Amino acid sequence: MELPSGLGAEQRVAEMLADIQRHNGGANVYLSLCGTALEEARASDARHAAGAVLGPLDGVVVSVKDNIDVAGLATTAGLGFRRHAVARDDAVAVARLRAAGAVILGKTNMHAAAFGATNHNADFGDCANPAHPGRVAGGSSGGAAASIAAGWADLALGTDTMGSVRIPGSYCGVAAVKPSYGRISPRGSVPLCRQLDHIGLLGRHAASLRPALAAVGGFDPACADSRLWPDAPAARPMRALRAPTALHGLDIEPEVWDAFQSAIAQLEAAGMAVHRFEAQADGLTPLRRAGLLLCEAELLWTYREEWAEHPDQFPKDMAAALRWVEDRKPADFARAWAKAADAVLLWRAWLADADALLLPAVGQRAFGYKSAVPTQQADLTLLANFVGAPAAVLPIPAVDGQPMTGLQIMAAPGADFALLDFAERVEGVLNSGPAKA
Amino acid sequence: MELPSGLGAEQRVAEMLADIQRHNGGANVYLSLCGTALEEARASDARHAAGAVLGPLDGVVVSVKDNIDVAGLATTAGLGFRRHAVARDDAVAVARLRAAGAVILGKTNMHAAAFGATNHNADFGDCANPAHPGRVAGGSSGGAAASIAAGWADLALGTDTMGSVRIPGSYCGVAAVKPSYGRISPRGSVPLCRQLDHIGLLGRHAASLRPALAAVGGFDPACADSRLWPDAPAARPMRALRAPTALHGLDIEPEVWDAFQSAIAQLEAAGMAVHRFEAQADGLTPLRRAGLLLCEAELLWTYREEWAEHPDQFPKDMAAALRWVEDRKPADFARAWAKAADAVLLWRAWLADADALLLPAVGQRAFGYKSAVPTQQADLTLLANFVGAPAAVLPIPAVDGQPMTGLQIMAAPGADFALLDFAERVEGVLNSGPAKA
Repeated sequence: MELPSGLGAEQRVAEMLADIQRHNGGANVYLSLCGTALEEARASDARHAAGAVLGPLDGVVVSVKDNIDVAGLATTAGLGFRRHAVARDDAVAVARLRAAGAVILGKTNMHAAAFGATNHNADFGDCANPAHPGRVAGGSSGGAAASIAAGWADLALGTDTMGSVRIPGSYCGVAAVKPSYGRISPRGSVPLCRQLDHIGLLGRHAASLRPALAAVGGFDPACADSRLWPDAPAARPMRALRAPTALHGLDIEPEVWDAFQSAIAQLEAAGMAVHRFEAQADGLTPLRRAGLLLCEAELLWTYREEWAEHPDQFPKDMAAALRWVEDRKPADFARAWAKAADAVLLWRAWLADADALLLPAVGQRAFGYKSAVPTQQADLTLLANFVGAPAAVLPIPAVDGQPMTGLQIMAAPGADFALLDFAERVEGVLNSGPAKA
Repeated sequence: MELPSGLGAEQRVAEMLADIQRHNGGANVYLSLCGTALEEARASDARHAAGAVLGPLDGVVVSVKDNIDVAGLATTAGLGFRRHAVARDDAVAVARLRAAGAVILGKTNMHAAAFGATNHNADFGDCANPAHPGRVAGGSSGGAAASIAAGWADLALGTDTMGSVRIPGSYCGVAAVKPSYGRISPRGSVPLCRQLDHIGLLGRHAASLRPALAAVGGFDPACADSRLWPDAPAARPMRALRAPTALHGLDIEPEVWDAFQSAIAQLEAAGMAVHRFEAQADGLTPLRRAGLLLCEAELLWTYREEWAEHPDQFPKDMAAALRWVEDRKPADFARAWAKAADAVLLWRAWLADADALLLPAVGQRAFGYKSAVPTQQADLTLLANFVGAPAAVLPIPAVDGQPMTGLQIMAAPGADFALLDFAERVEGVLNSGPAKA
């Protein structure tokens, strides 16, 4: 993994910590810090000096979303009433990072209970967007994306149930990947909706995500949601691409749509063949409703004790959603499960026989914390959660100095590494400048 | 596929039809017959005569459970109020059988809505068990198993949500397989619980199931629940076997347990190495409850119109279950989804590093229709549904003239053909006579 040259891990961690001490109070990116980070960084530097490097992640500085356990720190899941829920053990993903020599720096802010996409957080403060001050970081993994954008971590662990690493990645201008379902064991994280939950990764560049996924992913026999995926790269690089010429039924900001089309044009100008198709996207809205219903039902189960005893401790929006879902009927849940079938069929129709599908990550760019929250934030990301397919997001260069948006690349379940290889090629093209008209 | 020698399909179908005309009135095995069966049989005979055979299923006579569509016949799902629900098209599985030259003979009786395991049916009559007169055929695919046991079909299509091909296979003394999740497309069948539903196969011998699965299985891009499974046989035959020495927490008839242990002893005597382990099985009961709850919620959704308009049309037991589940809370369903994780972990622990796991199919042998229905009928079969793993059942030769029981063989998801090859070897050993003590 490419790191700023010439600096050891200890010096980098020390500089990050100093910057965090100065600025995190207003930014609310980190909720807690590991006391052992400098020590771990020194150990990594010693391994580098001794020629005993553990691998490409040795010395890489990692932030961990606060719904993933780090031993000795609270796992708040963004909820104030969990301030004292100290984890005894590292989550599997964290333990794998440590084993690969990574330095765990601290725990990042998030939308309460991972149930929302702005990272407004009344208990811990709204998370700043370092790329676009005053605007939402996005969520639910807002702190994860912000930690990368601020230069306060090289790699971030987040979670993604309907888009929660890809939306903040897009808003904060960093690369992100939600791998295939179960490639990264979720053991040791707080569930939102087990059928849709994925642990994901964020980094400055797509190139940083591949070695990270290789280190963090892998079968975990003690976790039922962990899946066996062949880790070998796909036999052939991704060549057959598809992208929509229109997404009927979705509200997409013109600037986002223009940036998306411009990115596709850049890829075409670089010699990539992109099959264009007109897409009917209004099937995504009922999928979002179904996904939210499944999340809400599971939140009622996950937080059953706290909700019964202290409903007043829950954030207002979340409490309203929980009260609403309490009145839903059994058939409503069965209908929501059945909806998942629509996602698979829509996905198959859109991907068709291509290797990768290109979409905007989200229809809006980062907006102000005081703005109304758009309802469709997750509509373009949730498809990959229902399908279990890997999806990466790359920032699309800013237009006219306005907030960046994200290009989403989706591939078939299991094709994670081929997807990340392809994302790196795409990133190279996008960074080489705009297409000649 | 091995068929009675010397007889053409037309003659066999004619004999079956004559026998059905004589005896089905009291047996309630078939609910309807295809008017074209003789014609299809003649066409198959002509292909055989012309040396233009379509494959191993050409001329094989097939019965179809009445929750799977056959064009032009009603798909009752065992519910009287669906007597006039005539299917316009064949289900995918039926169409694939026709394309392979099979003769579709008719539709078989089943437990109402596939929600029960005896094949008591107040609307269409209790299905007889040809192997054990006066006793339940088992369910929900009772007519499917009975059609094989009576010699009224060579192959039967059934469905299995928690054990519904394996339980009647066991009670009626025929071979059955529930393949890996999604290997046979369920498109064109009436769902019970989409996450657990599988189409399965029953036949006189294990050897008949392999070509049938090869013909009926395969990816269906138009069905979200269809899965891509490699069809190639496993690289190595199954050698590492595991079987419990005890199943603590389950009620198993001593005769069933003895027959199971005796079957294992026969396999060992034939040179198969079986690793024995003591199993804690009381985790199966909460899984059954979770599975039933998911079924009930989905029944409320599937039959929402009929239930709202004519609740009195539903069988008494089913109506009671639907009334009960109407009062369940959202968190109850989330808890049931979460339970599925326990099934996967239990399954991994029991299979461990073996190729196949041997279990009794069901804890009881076929009982009288007037007997109390045991609550644990599905406890040993449901595991494979939650995991999506293939599971075959072979009849264990009768002891003292009493009803047969079934030996269940389970393997890892995707290993269907290796499992069926192994089942054929096991069948050969079991049929060679009891172990010398």
